[in-house]
Amino acid sequence: MSTAEFRMHGHALVDWVANYLDTVEDQPVLSQCDPGAIRSLIPEHAPEDGEEFTDIMADLDRVVMPGLTHWQSPNWFSYFPANSSPVSVLGELASAGLASQGMLWSTSPAVTEVECAVLDWLVDLLGLPKSWKMTGPGGGVIQMSASDSTHTALVVARERCNAPIDLQVVYTSNQAHSSIEKGVRIAGIKELRLIDVDDRFAMDSVAFETVVLRDLDNGLTPSAVVSTIGTTGTTAVDPVERISSIARKHGLWHHVDAAYAGTAMICPEFRYLQDGLNKVDSYTFNPHKWMFTNFDCNVFWVADRKPLIETMTIVPPYLRDKASESGSVVDYRDWHVSLGRRFRSLKLWWVLRSYGAAGIRYHVREHVRLARDFEARILGDSRFALVAPTLFSLVSFRHISGEKATIDLAVAINATGKVMVTSSIINEQSFIRVSIGQTRTEQNHVDALWSIIDAHAIRR
Amino acid sequence: MSTAEFRMHGHALVDWVANYLDTVEDQPVLSQCDPGAIRSLIPEHAPEDGEEFTDIMADLDRVVMPGLTHWQSPNWFSYFPANSSPVSVLGELASAGLASQGMLWSTSPAVTEVECAVLDWLVDLLGLPKSWKMTGPGGGVIQMSASDSTHTALVVARERCNAPIDLQVVYTSNQAHSSIEKGVRIAGIKELRLIDVDDRFAMDSVAFETVVLRDLDNGLTPSAVVSTIGTTGTTAVDPVERISSIARKHGLWHHVDAAYAGTAMICPEFRYLQDGLNKVDSYTFNPHKWMFTNFDCNVFWVADRKPLIETMTIVPPYLRDKASESGSVVDYRDWHVSLGRRFRSLKLWWVLRSYGAAGIRYHVREHVRLARDFEARILGDSRFALVAPTLFSLVSFRHISGEKATIDLAVAINATGKVMVTSSIINEQSFIRVSIGQTRTEQNHVDALWSIIDAHAIRR
Repeated sequence: MSTAEFRMHGHALVDWVANYLDTVEDQPVLSQCDPGAIRSLIPEHAPEDGEEFTDIMADLDRVVMPGLTHWQSPNWFSYFPANSSPVSVLGELASAGLASQGMLWSTSPAVTEVECAVLDWLVDLLGLPKSWKMTGPGGGVIQMSASDSTHTALVVARERCNAPIDLQVVYTSNQAHSSIEKGVRIAGIKELRLIDVDDRFAMDSVAFETVVLRDLDNGLTPSAVVSTIGTTGTTAVDPVERISSIARKHGLWHHVDAAYAGTAMICPEFRYLQDGLNKVDSYTFNPHKWMFTNFDCNVFWVADRKPLIETMTIVPPYLRDKASESGSVVDYRDWHVSLGRRFRSLKLWWVLRSYGAAGIRYHVREHVRLARDFEARILGDSRFALVAPTLFSLVSFRHISGEKATIDLAVAINATGKVMVTSSIINEQSFIRVSIGQTRTEQNHVDALWSIIDAHAIRR
Repeated sequence: MSTAEFRMHGHALVDWVANYLDTVEDQPVLSQCDPGAIRSLIPEHAPEDGEEFTDIMADLDRVVMPGLTHWQSPNWFSYFPANSSPVSVLGELASAGLASQGMLWSTSPAVTEVECAVLDWLVDLLGLPKSWKMTGPGGGVIQMSASDSTHTALVVARERCNAPIDLQVVYTSNQAHSSIEKGVRIAGIKELRLIDVDDRFAMDSVAFETVVLRDLDNGLTPSAVVSTIGTTGTTAVDPVERISSIARKHGLWHHVDAAYAGTAMICPEFRYLQDGLNKVDSYTFNPHKWMFTNFDCNVFWVADRKPLIETMTIVPPYLRDKASESGSVVDYRDWHVSLGRRFRSLKLWWVLRSYGAAGIRYHVREHVRLARDFEARILGDSRFALVAPTLFSLVSFRHISGEKATIDLAVAINATGKVMVTSSIINEQSFIRVSIGQTRTEQNHVDALWSIIDAHAIRR
């Protein structure tokens, strides 16, 4: 494809994407296709000769669309959002077009310096500790996912701990995300303790310290604790401040997973929920969940970059570099598992500039307002009970007639194809998660969801 | 930004990218900026109110361009290529526009099924073992980088090994990529043996077995060996077949790193260099190096997907999806560290279709032809000596007058700004790597490079 053809096809594809965003609302949210249906539309072998781009692009409609579950539909109330925005898509396009590598500062200084600047912006925007800025002892880096950041934090904690790996213990609440268990396993740590939660599903810090002391008595070495600001089940918030004190007392690395709720902190009224961050060791949140930045875009901050870099650095002769050795620059290669990295910050930079801080605050508050409005309807209907308070933009509820009524309702909602919610289980009871946060979800979408719920929930 | 504005700005950005690709050849390859120069152009705080996109986009020229090292310049002869193509950029745009999540089959079946189909295509295209297809016991997955795939392989090997982690030993050649050492360290394995190489810088398989036997005698447990097809230093090729036999005899997991050279195997004449793959356990190569697919796009294959899924799944056995293990439904969440994943295969699918297998073969052969032509010039000039044979498209040479002449030459070449090469060290001697593989590198670019070398290399 020549660059002249790229212009022509690129314009057509931009228009196709715009049409998709304009019409995705009318698509069934959950793909209706059967296993193997998409694959059966793809030839068994790659073509020997090149195909016309118009034919390739036509397969977006013919092959891809029937197999998409539409995370960008404003009727998306499932999982957490993985929202996006037109300006973010353009940022990804620019990054792909430049195709620069940011493994070292020198391999494209702008890739590194824009990232440093934008993550420092976010420290201020989210009310995070100033010492996490690149100008302080800490620093931030963009990774692919919160799973990667949590795994990285656990590896650094493991290396920093003096005890043999087989004696190390990691702690998190029984409501923590599966990525904690996965990270612990991948890091080769054998013991993970799931700490009990209180009636709001937040970690019980007394129970945490009790278990730590018992492990110490048994000759084990507590090496890390992962607390959560906004759990996946119900957006519960662990008592970060109290957990931090216990972690410091006993020498544990304290990592905070704020994958979803981190974005809310751009609104000062939520920041009481992150008290104590000034005493944690690392922190992660996902702009690709709720900050209008398309996947992937995860941010990982450390309070002190030294142990991270010490764990991750390997310098072979062909990667030795004058600027790096002087220490005057950041080489992000030494901040994560992978070596190569694309211009990851470009789309986030563009999103923050295009919306402005006020614009992002507006949309976040609007999502929270919609969630509280929805919560009020749940509270006002005697068929339903809330499972947890609505702290952010997730509403968790169940049908009070019991398991079958709740599960049947979730199935009926999703069977309409018009919206999508997630069912989950807590305290051995099923419940329904209504997660609000897709970029273009507005009052009418939530109203329509409510009508579907109202119509399908059995009377008592 | 409305979708109407997205159309308008998207067209303008497509044109900007096309202009970039049309003119990148005229830019200094290596960014000439000083540390901090780019950051000084970025305000200290995010804007409170949104900015106009035209201003944001203008900063591509004002802020970004001075800080780019141009990996997409046809004058790029440094590191390995990280090449791209217009159609790949469009694939990334489409993927970003759809912004679907492929963590589970159900969260967007097309994301998973296109990936399975395209990776099965590649098994045939590259002459890899048929059993690696999704229809067999193996399977492939797209990850971010070869570092991630190698780390994943080492974690699976570690878990599969019966010995405690502190007794496990991993082996690779002293020419292996730094990602092996890094992966070993991140996986928590203490012992890595760097095996000697022969005079072509390929692993000495006799030395490998000798070290394995010594470790066994000492009560250690060899758990994995990583061999390389196309080392970073000189594109040396380890004897995969012999290493496989030794690995099988002693129960080691055998992972193959073909990050760069894997692409060459689309041309049957190179496949003798991958003999023995039918006995290895895992394999990785990077379409984002030499297959015209912009970073990131790494492929990881396993001969048997069961141990990989067992290691990476956090779903307890009683919830495990039978269909997933049989191959009819794949949940890629269980194939790597991260949970979320974008529509990774779309751009690779488009590249393979747009070029066709014949098109990719043509360009790969052309790069190899250019490299051999350049090698002939080196051989024909008494100032230079080859450091290693040119197996693919990398030429490694030094100035025979010694260290200073070689290092001075490398510095002088890059100081022109017109081209970029990498200097490295092997056997304690410096040498220069000329790596050919950028998408639009042609004879005239290599001729210009030769003229620069000829002009700057001191006479004997």
